[in-house]
Amino acid sequence: MSFRHPDRDQIRIEGVLTALGNPLRLGAVRVLDAGGEHNCGSVLAVLGVTSKSTMTHHWRVLRDSGVIRQEPSGRENLLSLRRADLDARYPGLLDAILTGARNDGPDPKHPEAAGTGAWATGTASGSRTADAPGR
Amino acid sequence: MSFRHPDRDQIRIEGVLTALGNPLRLGAVRVLDAGGEHNCGSVLAVLGVTSKSTMTHHWRVLRDSGVIRQEPSGRENLLSLRRADLDARYPGLLDAILTGARNDGPDPKHPEAAGTGAWATGTASGSRTADAPGR
Repeated sequence: MSFRHPDRDQIRIEGVLTALGNPLRLGAVRVLDAGGEHNCGSVLAVLGVTSKSTMTHHWRVLRDSGVIRQEPSGRENLLSLRRADLDARYPGLLDAILTGARNDGPDPKHPEAAGTGAWATGTASGSRTADAPGR
Repeated sequence: MSFRHPDRDQIRIEGVLTALGNPLRLGAVRVLDAGGEHNCGSVLAVLGVTSKSTMTHHWRVLRDSGVIRQEPSGRENLLSLRRADLDARYPGLLDAILTGARNDGPDPKHPEAAGTGAWATGTASGSRTADAPGR
C-alpha cells in the first residue's frame, strides 16, 4: 500500500502547525530530523510508544499536512521529514520550531516524561497525552 | 472579569502551534500583528465573523497558549499579540508563520474566502471552517 502525499505547493501553514502542535507528532519529527532512515517501529522505540495503533492517526496527520513522507519498503514503511519542501515553503519555520521544542524541555504538566532524558538529548518522550489541550 | 495568562516561561511550543494551526485564530493573530488596539468586535469585523460566540473558544485557546493578551477595559476586552514574549521564547517563529500565511494566500479548499481580498492585504478572511482539517 502506498500513501498519498500533498505536492509542495499544496502544503498549507495551518496544516503544518496543527500537525506539529501535538507532543507525539512533534517528537516524531524531532527523531526524523536527527537524520538516518527510520521505519515506524524505530521512531516509536525512541518515543517510548508501545502501541503502533496510537501512531497510525499521527502518521496520517503528518503525511497529509506535508510534514513527512511515508513510503512502503518491503514489509515496512520508511519515514522521512520533508525538510526541503518545508524549508522552501516556510523558510526558518521548521528550525524555529525544533529549536523551540528543544529549549522548552520536558513539559512540567507531564513530569514523568522528564525521567527519560529524551527531550534533553533532542528526541522526545512518548509518555504524554496524545493530543494537545485545546483540540 | 479578568483573564489568566501564562507567564512567558510557561508558554509551550505545542500550545502555540496548536493555537495558530487554526485558520480563524491565525487570521486573528494576523489582524493583531498589523498593530493598533483592538477589541474583540473590531477583530471579528476584519475576519468577517458575525458570531461573537464562535470566537469565545478561540480567544481562550489563544490566551491560554500565551499568544495573546485579553484585558478588560471598561465594557470591552482589549486584545494584543504577545510578540515580545513569543519572540523571546521562540526567535523567528512568529515571523516565519505570519510570512508563511501571507504567502499561502487563500485556501483553495475555501475559494469563497478569496473574494474578500483580505488575505492579499495581510489580514484574514473568516469565511472558513472554524477548525483546521486533521483535528
